[in-house]
Amino acid sequence: MLTLNQHPSGRHFLQIPGPSPVPDRILRAMCLPTIDHRGPEFGRLGLKVLAGIQQIFQTQHPVAIYPASGTGAWEAALANTMSPGDRVLMVETGQFATLWQKMATRLGLQTEFISEPGTCAETGLPLAWRRGVNAALIEERLRADAGHQIRAVCVVHNETSTGVTSDIAAVRRAIDSVKHPALLMVDTISGLASADYRHDEWRVDVAISGSQKGLMLPPGISFNALSPRALEVSKTAKLPKSFWAWDEIVEMNKGGYWPYTPSTNLLYGLHEALDMLLAQGLPTVFARHQRWAAGVRAAVTAWGLPIQCADPAVYSPVLTGVVTPAGVDADAVRKLIHTRYDMSLGTGLGKVKGRMFRIGHLGDCNDLTLVATVAGCEMGLKQAGVKLAGSGVQALMEAFT
Amino acid sequence: MLTLNQHPSGRHFLQIPGPSPVPDRILRAMCLPTIDHRGPEFGRLGLKVLAGIQQIFQTQHPVAIYPASGTGAWEAALANTMSPGDRVLMVETGQFATLWQKMATRLGLQTEFISEPGTCAETGLPLAWRRGVNAALIEERLRADAGHQIRAVCVVHNETSTGVTSDIAAVRRAIDSVKHPALLMVDTISGLASADYRHDEWRVDVAISGSQKGLMLPPGISFNALSPRALEVSKTAKLPKSFWAWDEIVEMNKGGYWPYTPSTNLLYGLHEALDMLLAQGLPTVFARHQRWAAGVRAAVTAWGLPIQCADPAVYSPVLTGVVTPAGVDADAVRKLIHTRYDMSLGTGLGKVKGRMFRIGHLGDCNDLTLVATVAGCEMGLKQAGVKLAGSGVQALMEAFT
Amino acid sequence: MLTLNQHPSGRHFLQIPGPSPVPDRILRAMCLPTIDHRGPEFGRLGLKVLAGIQQIFQTQHPVAIYPASGTGAWEAALANTMSPGDRVLMVETGQFATLWQKMATRLGLQTEFISEPGTCAETGLPLAWRRGVNAALIEERLRADAGHQIRAVCVVHNETSTGVTSDIAAVRRAIDSVKHPALLMVDTISGLASADYRHDEWRVDVAISGSQKGLMLPPGISFNALSPRALEVSKTAKLPKSFWAWDEIVEMNKGGYWPYTPSTNLLYGLHEALDMLLAQGLPTVFARHQRWAAGVRAAVTAWGLPIQCADPAVYSPVLTGVVTPAGVDADAVRKLIHTRYDMSLGTGLGKVKGRMFRIGHLGDCNDLTLVATVAGCEMGLKQAGVKLAGSGVQALMEAFT
Amino acid sequence: MLTLNQHPSGRHFLQIPGPSPVPDRILRAMCLPTIDHRGPEFGRLGLKVLAGIQQIFQTQHPVAIYPASGTGAWEAALANTMSPGDRVLMVETGQFATLWQKMATRLGLQTEFISEPGTCAETGLPLAWRRGVNAALIEERLRADAGHQIRAVCVVHNETSTGVTSDIAAVRRAIDSVKHPALLMVDTISGLASADYRHDEWRVDVAISGSQKGLMLPPGISFNALSPRALEVSKTAKLPKSFWAWDEIVEMNKGGYWPYTPSTNLLYGLHEALDMLLAQGLPTVFARHQRWAAGVRAAVTAWGLPIQCADPAVYSPVLTGVVTPAGVDADAVRKLIHTRYDMSLGTGLGKVKGRMFRIGHLGDCNDLTLVATVAGCEMGLKQAGVKLAGSGVQALMEAFT
Repeated sequence: MLTLNQHPSGRHFLQIPGPSPVPDRILRAMCLPTIDHRGPEFGRLGLKVLAGIQQIFQTQHPVAIYPASGTGAWEAALANTMSPGDRVLMVETGQFATLWQKMATRLGLQTEFISEPGTCAETGLPLAWRRGVNAALIEERLRADAGHQIRAVCVVHNETSTGVTSDIAAVRRAIDSVKHPALLMVDTISGLASADYRHDEWRVDVAISGSQKGLMLPPGISFNALSPRALEVSKTAKLPKSFWAWDEIVEMNKGGYWPYTPSTNLLYGLHEALDMLLAQGLPTVFARHQRWAAGVRAAVTAWGLPIQCADPAVYSPVLTGVVTPAGVDADAVRKLIHTRYDMSLGTGLGKVKGRMFRIGHLGDCNDLTLVATVAGCEMGLKQAGVKLAGSGVQALMEAFT
Repeated sequence: MLTLNQHPSGRHFLQIPGPSPVPDRILRAMCLPTIDHRGPEFGRLGLKVLAGIQQIFQTQHPVAIYPASGTGAWEAALANTMSPGDRVLMVETGQFATLWQKMATRLGLQTEFISEPGTCAETGLPLAWRRGVNAALIEERLRADAGHQIRAVCVVHNETSTGVTSDIAAVRRAIDSVKHPALLMVDTISGLASADYRHDEWRVDVAISGSQKGLMLPPGISFNALSPRALEVSKTAKLPKSFWAWDEIVEMNKGGYWPYTPSTNLLYGLHEALDMLLAQGLPTVFARHQRWAAGVRAAVTAWGLPIQCADPAVYSPVLTGVVTPAGVDADAVRKLIHTRYDMSLGTGLGKVKGRMFRIGHLGDCNDLTLVATVAGCEMGLKQAGVKLAGSGVQALMEAFT
Repeated sequence: MLTLNQHPSGRHFLQIPGPSPVPDRILRAMCLPTIDHRGPEFGRLGLKVLAGIQQIFQTQHPVAIYPASGTGAWEAALANTMSPGDRVLMVETGQFATLWQKMATRLGLQTEFISEPGTCAETGLPLAWRRGVNAALIEERLRADAGHQIRAVCVVHNETSTGVTSDIAAVRRAIDSVKHPALLMVDTISGLASADYRHDEWRVDVAISGSQKGLMLPPGISFNALSPRALEVSKTAKLPKSFWAWDEIVEMNKGGYWPYTPSTNLLYGLHEALDMLLAQGLPTVFARHQRWAAGVRAAVTAWGLPIQCADPAVYSPVLTGVVTPAGVDADAVRKLIHTRYDMSLGTGLGKVKGRMFRIGHLGDCNDLTLVATVAGCEMGLKQAGVKLAGSGVQALMEAFT
Repeated sequence: MLTLNQHPSGRHFLQIPGPSPVPDRILRAMCLPTIDHRGPEFGRLGLKVLAGIQQIFQTQHPVAIYPASGTGAWEAALANTMSPGDRVLMVETGQFATLWQKMATRLGLQTEFISEPGTCAETGLPLAWRRGVNAALIEERLRADAGHQIRAVCVVHNETSTGVTSDIAAVRRAIDSVKHPALLMVDTISGLASADYRHDEWRVDVAISGSQKGLMLPPGISFNALSPRALEVSKTAKLPKSFWAWDEIVEMNKGGYWPYTPSTNLLYGLHEALDMLLAQGLPTVFARHQRWAAGVRAAVTAWGLPIQCADPAVYSPVLTGVVTPAGVDADAVRKLIHTRYDMSLGTGLGKVKGRMFRIGHLGDCNDLTLVATVAGCEMGLKQAGVKLAGSGVQALMEAFT
């Protein structure tokens, strides 16, 4: 039998910024027997989840659901809209923006990767990884692109590697202000259903998301929310596409079906997740995340450690990056916490590897699990020899009362 | 809450040729809590399932596991090995061979789709859909290809739309006999773990499979079993690829990890499925399917109805296609059976639509579920007004005693 | 890990007359986390299941739910109403009537166990075990009891060991006709929620039932449905009682709680079972059982084997006893069927041991599972060398179309 | 559908001293399909759990497993060993000792209920509820009982209402020192598998336990661990007994079966629980509980609140009672914590109602869940206006590092 947790008793604390803890309700829904994906019961299920996911994206336009994890949905967004050699403007906000840019390059696109220059004096970390998308830089670059060679602006809504939530409406305004026809593509893999994301209001053309974050599902399905213009562009885009192709999916979805076998049991889970989220209402869901995030930041501040996100205007409600003092290996701290306290934290990725760790505070959490989380960090930091200015747990408890 | 079955009591009979019924053991394994896909527990899980799936493919070479359904693995096989405009030789054996050919075309390849010509006198159905791959036709075509423009021969091992299991060893011999360098790519989506499939012995270059058939999992993960030559070819193949790219997967798999988020909970299920299948041994698993298939064919024969597969040498152990008499809409029969007896059967696809239905006899079945299945068909056929020569149930029970 | 089924694949057929197959919906409900049985959520749950179970018993009076299996509820019925040395009239209808009588004796009551005399010429089995309660015998005995020494008449509604459903309304009329004050106590452990049981209309004083039959739950909780008179009598009855005592239970139940820890997770299952049964409506549930029973009897008749119940007026809708020919060990047949076809059937108990087996057709079944069940019996009987007059499966399929 | 938790997200903290949180592994094991309790698979399961539970009780003698909750096992202990009017010596240590005494009286026994006299100056609470069993008082009373009219000494091992674990070995020595033949009966319902309990070494005659505490199961099954002498005595004891009778259970258990239907799915859970506990080893399990208990007491001490147990020699490893300041309604604090922080705590029972609450630290916990638990209490106490001397969370974290 599969027994994953090596700890003798108790429940693992999964406090990485995704996969987030999956509620029992969803796990139970997922173990309903698999059914015929061409039968009438499935069609009813399909129509329900397709309608529900539109509400989550705050869109009235089609959302393609892929039986594939989030990285696939990145590829889908590009494959449906771009032709070989097309130029895309991307913005370095952290590791996931970087990986998406590498993917675009690998798929044969010309990528421009703009980035806030410089290094933070306090931490020695790249400034670009401590701030959100600078819409002014985008505007400037688009203005210079008089020939409209840039086909798309690609940004990350909530940068999972840093804990920064960029201002997508500002990006939209930047594009509009110069009347540039580039598509706006937004990765909201870790933002959706935790941070406010407004597909139609912000006129995003393609949004990419995944199941294992705010939707509280295991990984395995992912999403492309579309705009009418994205659908139009996809008819002439020339990157080869078949599995990812929107046309057949959108057509088949009208009846609640998919052109090929969908991920049945994850769709059961999605059905349950939508029930849970929509019953509560998105504003309430977003407020809960903001409350947790504020509490965790109060804790980090009490410790006297820098928060990875240096701009309070774009603090992430989903996760908080904690920068460890110079000389302290953040991964050693994480490992100690994992071993002693049975808690998983997010590692520092790419340019911040070893210099920070990430606390996920999203999805199926509550006040007490977050107190436990912060306590596990605090005990681990101390045991790793980090001098803390004060008690983060105390600060968090004050925030929660 | 999600309640899928509209029938008042009892368990639905899912007797389509996949998704096959998922054993309770696997459903339970899948509802373990999701864990950190970068943590040590996950690495151990990853190494175990990667080793186990190699045994199922009967290979010592890498098997890529995708967090995507089977159609994705078709695309992966082509995207990793082909360059735009490459020529591939494909063989029409039914609907899935046809869909794969359409995909190859859509991805920008030149496809040659060879096919047994003619129509069956008895049933009016295309002969190509009642037989397996004709290795002699492949040999002939490859011999003519002196310039070696054909980069790959693509065949379907077990054609899910017809119930025909082609002789892959014969295809291998055909390629070898003319010393043609084309890759051999085999779709064994519905064959693997039900019908004998020998990746290394048959020197297949890329095998494609999925989770929801003989592996008894829900849909959602899929496989590419590779050969060293396929890996070599993939280094220079020029179709754009990123999500599907083998290189990073094979590299990361060495530690039990994946380059992006894998489908954690389906991997739990795979772990359990491998435990179940390997404990019993593949020969026993294959024998069980052969026994069921022989019993079901005895039933169809007793009814006096044609079996879709007209060549006894390539009867499928996985499913049996049943041709309904001219004038009888096979889908109306299926619908009646679904409504009255709470059983799903496979529909006739493409060129045989309405003329046949398919009985799945794979995975988590036993003798009594198959008696029930055949009884449901027999009652439904009679109620639909089909005159049967005799009792298939009686014949099946005799076969089983 | 616990893996119960030694068969390599497929689902076990649990066709004993209880425990009956537990629907997945109920198993899933049972694995909700255990909660505080003194908290507000529990009180709401308690009130719901208490109201629901009254509908199942067709009563407006209290139903005590015990965290104990059905045998305990037998004891509870006696312990709450009887005093040491009290006389009770019981009727031999089979093994469970016999066991209840033994229990009454063991608890210090004087039991009169009346019985249809004689032996069946056809089968050599006791006639009492092939018929229901003879109300005339009860009436006669009560008439003779001018001093009203008999405190209770105890009968079994659906005799699980024989497949006979006695006419409780007739017993009520018999008691009334002689104006005897004896309590009427009815064991409907295997009758409730499968066969029509009307607590208030029949003026039963105490009904006993359990979870693992028509309610489709695992064993572990049981019931006493009460009448006002039973409650009144319990105030002065002198058998020692504490765990079983109705007074505190009825009092605490007003708020949805119990005087001691209830069986939380089985109550979750009961909540789900009530949802399922009441959504459909009891008449529909009863009709479904009657239909199945008629089909199974048609099969047994086609085999040319005697049905254990010799009186068509009291055939059980829950199970059918099948008498094997003299010289055929029914248990050897059962064992063969278990080994070869992964199906459990009920054994012959007590006076009919080895001479019959029992087919359960209750709860979470459907037409196809019953065809499979009868087919398993038919194949097993043949393999055990029993000559059958004809095909029971064929007869059953005709009954079902 | 049943959705128990009214909180919008996160997992309920069930920190009452039983039912304790049920591990996912056990919940999953419990949802295996119910099987035939007379079939061969069941016999194997029965033998395994019977052997395993003996190890937990540290006994080589039979353990009766009842399909009934713990209160039933209290009754079973008395019903099997006592005759009407027999005298038993019981010791008031709290609410559960009191309830057991009431039950004994209700069953027709003469109970002597000895008790530490007086009231605690500090808290106003009865002294008897702040200390363990005083073996000297027992010795004194037994010495006075020259005629050996006292048939049994009944004590509670771990008093769930107070958090006091009495010294059973001392009680044994007290009985031995006066050579009194009384049986020693011990309620270890909340002690077993959390606190060290040694049935054979301490020569206990009947131990009573339940499933929902250290065994980490839902409530619903319970235990009587026996001694040879208890079995001997049961042959002549005259209280009426049938459901509880050891004789048939012990006899049937030899083959792994029970005389009546056992609680199948809870036995699945027991099988899993035994696997978990015995794999780790009882000393490790006990040490874990001691560690948690010490940490929680450090927290209570830091708050400046009295621990209900006033004698450090008998602090419970299972739970800690926290006495609230005069004028503070402990139940109002509990309710506030339940509403705001989604955590259940144990209420003050009987003589200490409203004056204390109980923190369970048993079973499937870990360091971080206990930090969360203490934090929930601390925040709730403050919000209820209780002045705390210091931070219990801080003290607990220090204890855990």
